[in-house]
Amino acid sequence: MARGGKQRSARAPRARLTHLDAQGRAHMVEVGDKAVTAREAIARGRVRMSPATLDTLQRGTAKKGDVLAVARIAGIQAAKRTPELIPLCHAIMLTGCELAFSPDATQSVLHIEARVRALDRTGAEMEALTAVAVAALTVYDMLKAVDREMTIEAIALHEKRGGKSGDFVRARKP
Amino acid sequence: MARGGKQRSARAPRARLTHLDAQGRAHMVEVGDKAVTAREAIARGRVRMSPATLDTLQRGTAKKGDVLAVARIAGIQAAKRTPELIPLCHAIMLTGCELAFSPDATQSVLHIEARVRALDRTGAEMEALTAVAVAALTVYDMLKAVDREMTIEAIALHEKRGGKSGDFVRARKP
Amino acid sequence: MARGGKQRSARAPRARLTHLDAQGRAHMVEVGDKAVTAREAIARGRVRMSPATLDTLQRGTAKKGDVLAVARIAGIQAAKRTPELIPLCHAIMLTGCELAFSPDATQSVLHIEARVRALDRTGAEMEALTAVAVAALTVYDMLKAVDREMTIEAIALHEKRGGKSGDFVRARKP
Amino acid sequence: MARGGKQRSARAPRARLTHLDAQGRAHMVEVGDKAVTAREAIARGRVRMSPATLDTLQRGTAKKGDVLAVARIAGIQAAKRTPELIPLCHAIMLTGCELAFSPDATQSVLHIEARVRALDRTGAEMEALTAVAVAALTVYDMLKAVDREMTIEAIALHEKRGGKSGDFVRARKP
Amino acid sequence: MARGGKQRSARAPRARLTHLDAQGRAHMVEVGDKAVTAREAIARGRVRMSPATLDTLQRGTAKKGDVLAVARIAGIQAAKRTPELIPLCHAIMLTGCELAFSPDATQSVLHIEARVRALDRTGAEMEALTAVAVAALTVYDMLKAVDREMTIEAIALHEKRGGKSGDFVRARKP
Amino acid sequence: MARGGKQRSARAPRARLTHLDAQGRAHMVEVGDKAVTAREAIARGRVRMSPATLDTLQRGTAKKGDVLAVARIAGIQAAKRTPELIPLCHAIMLTGCELAFSPDATQSVLHIEARVRALDRTGAEMEALTAVAVAALTVYDMLKAVDREMTIEAIALHEKRGGKSGDFVRARKP
Repeated sequence: MARGGKQRSARAPRARLTHLDAQGRAHMVEVGDKAVTAREAIARGRVRMSPATLDTLQRGTAKKGDVLAVARIAGIQAAKRTPELIPLCHAIMLTGCELAFSPDATQSVLHIEARVRALDRTGAEMEALTAVAVAALTVYDMLKAVDREMTIEAIALHEKRGGKSGDFVRARKP
Repeated sequence: MARGGKQRSARAPRARLTHLDAQGRAHMVEVGDKAVTAREAIARGRVRMSPATLDTLQRGTAKKGDVLAVARIAGIQAAKRTPELIPLCHAIMLTGCELAFSPDATQSVLHIEARVRALDRTGAEMEALTAVAVAALTVYDMLKAVDREMTIEAIALHEKRGGKSGDFVRARKP
Repeated sequence: MARGGKQRSARAPRARLTHLDAQGRAHMVEVGDKAVTAREAIARGRVRMSPATLDTLQRGTAKKGDVLAVARIAGIQAAKRTPELIPLCHAIMLTGCELAFSPDATQSVLHIEARVRALDRTGAEMEALTAVAVAALTVYDMLKAVDREMTIEAIALHEKRGGKSGDFVRARKP
Repeated sequence: MARGGKQRSARAPRARLTHLDAQGRAHMVEVGDKAVTAREAIARGRVRMSPATLDTLQRGTAKKGDVLAVARIAGIQAAKRTPELIPLCHAIMLTGCELAFSPDATQSVLHIEARVRALDRTGAEMEALTAVAVAALTVYDMLKAVDREMTIEAIALHEKRGGKSGDFVRARKP
Repeated sequence: MARGGKQRSARAPRARLTHLDAQGRAHMVEVGDKAVTAREAIARGRVRMSPATLDTLQRGTAKKGDVLAVARIAGIQAAKRTPELIPLCHAIMLTGCELAFSPDATQSVLHIEARVRALDRTGAEMEALTAVAVAALTVYDMLKAVDREMTIEAIALHEKRGGKSGDFVRARKP
Repeated sequence: MARGGKQRSARAPRARLTHLDAQGRAHMVEVGDKAVTAREAIARGRVRMSPATLDTLQRGTAKKGDVLAVARIAGIQAAKRTPELIPLCHAIMLTGCELAFSPDATQSVLHIEARVRALDRTGAEMEALTAVAVAALTVYDMLKAVDREMTIEAIALHEKRGGKSGDFVRARKP
């Protein structure tokens, strides 16, 4: 398990969850003493679907454009509303967000990647992960009439830059 | 691939996506001629984490209760705001929603299950899937300070009851 | 303590909280088997302020109208978003909502009353209480530059009609 | 009436409400020329309930944890959405938020306290008051099946730090 | 001025605004005694832009698809959140919603049309008008870097069906 | 067509839409390298209505105040939620917002103007335009029972100050 920066080990005997206070009660962590820095987070995930469904999506994409356009917008909007969805998240100043989709016939999956940048005291990991998850749910919604067995897989943080805990590049494949 | 009811095959040569019109443009599907019926959907997913993180979560859960309590509330609230997140979803009359979590040391994962019931013209699949996804994201948020390599996996619909397309019980394991 | 209908006594040895399941976990209570009935709830509260502040409000009200107009709109909008604010509340079909304000120089308070009506399987108490609370907060916001010592008091349910648990008319003054 | 700092007297003959312009029309006050400073606000309130209800809550808290956990999350989320609820509030950069609950058998009340911190041009009073109010409403919602006569009382600002108008510590008990 | 059904004349000496009570105070009109009927509303509007901008939009549309896809999603989502935006609107059960765009080089405008259907006690006019307005604003947003002089014009209700006041077909061109 | 500042010509052969990337896909434009500056935007629009409706509005305004008060609040709140409505808009730090209405019997219209100020990396045009549009929709909603033929017209940006692209004062009347 490779991690960058000063992040503390998950194996430390008394790993303390920052979102819980000394009594174990949830709170919104104080970040007022942290510096505003440029931050970036890249998250990825995928939607596994039958070859026929992937084919429908791709033909749809080639000719019509709307399936992935809807998912892209849903993901960007979800990034913006992350603090409403994730109870203890701070609202942060997002400076940019983009989503990329790549259908992969070999694995019979649609890959989704979100890149989020912010200038703030706390990072944009949750925004990137939320964008991927909501884009994946939207793809599911638009294709569910032809395939209810799709699965949303491997939503994970891949890179993170900026902030006191240092850079992070994922070592293990999810 | 086993599917219940009258759901059309994903392999049919002209599988039409209901969320796109004849020109391939996104729209909110008309459901006004469907009957209001009792509907239920069960979705599941899991958060894969290191054994140390799972142990931190479980000790936290046993003593303090707040980590999973926060994720449970986040999931229920997300079920209610599904039509805001998923662009082409109809708002439906949810009648009940519950989330269950079960840590699994053997697989080193936290299992999440959402059951959603509604009385409406369209189903509650997206609500159940969204509840699982947002609960999983919330678990990630609360544990990320100790483990950034967690992965959200296998978000899938497991059961669905009610509505014209009939019942669905997932055949393949996600 | 006078209560109408079949409401169970708060002194019963095993009063079970409906919003917690048998294991004490929060869930959204299933209401799918309840009948849709006409429901009404009346809640009241008041904002205590200095005589000078009340005088400013009243002169403002007489001449300008906007302070209470803003609070009224805030209260009505809050009634509509109650299920977003109160985590385990169901969204219900509100059919009407009104707020009344009456300044009371004798007690040096502003009285606030909300009446909410709905046609649904569950009651509108939380909508009426939320409307009063948010209207009171809005009054505080608009007058806080002249009086930070205002207090929001006595937010309580006064009447409730419709539904299986029967009618309720508050006995004790809050 | 004791007030800290430079706050103007509520008894001044021409006390002007900052949220109304010279014609008495509501507007969002311009704060662009104020400095960004660290701000903190502490608000308190309480929920009065029967001894039996308080006992149910406490036994629930001891064994299960979920009632106050739900109210805590509701309060934190409400702090974040204050500018949506209170029409003329500015969105501010919250840096931290926590809620504390203390059941008080002597008075038969549950005390609620919210502390909110922000780095912005305007204060966090409304966020702290809103957090207390919504946490109190959530407690009401979760206990209303056993006691509809609960009352939400004494929601007031207790301390405020930062900003041009100086510090404020409440003199009178609400 | 041609109007369908029983709508009262705007020239009647005591035309009463339904959204104000007898004292002129805003309230959410009671609709609980109205029947649930199928309702439809069609609204239109247009965005006037320079020929060069319209050309950029059309080339974009032909090749890329995303400009109007984003506006379409924004319009549909706005229809769903109409009761949050328009303070005295009831939430209604939308059963379908679609938006159509047609660039018109002769007039140098983009025409926008929204059709909304609902099954409820009150109509869907505001949902259709809001969808058109927000789709137009989104088009403005996406093209403003090349043309800040665009104008949003002629947002009007064109047809309305269902409900007690009868059908309405606009007589005058807006 | 007169434009201030460095805005590029809409007639340039390769006008690129900033909200689309090189492949024509929507994204949230990166603004992290722009300076935070004071920004102001002024937008205007109008609601055309029959003389009788305008008379009802004016008598209502004189005596009761609530119609325009509701529209004003709706406009201010819409300015704050612009990034939720317009998919690719950044959330910005609004520092002030005001709306003005002026009934005009000669033209039989109600004029609406919104002024929005912000301290941010990107401008407040969309906030001002959204405020005008939602205020106009709210006026429509409150008067529609007496006049369904009202039209929302001429929503346009009139002035813009601050930011790299320089000041803008509209040349053509909309």
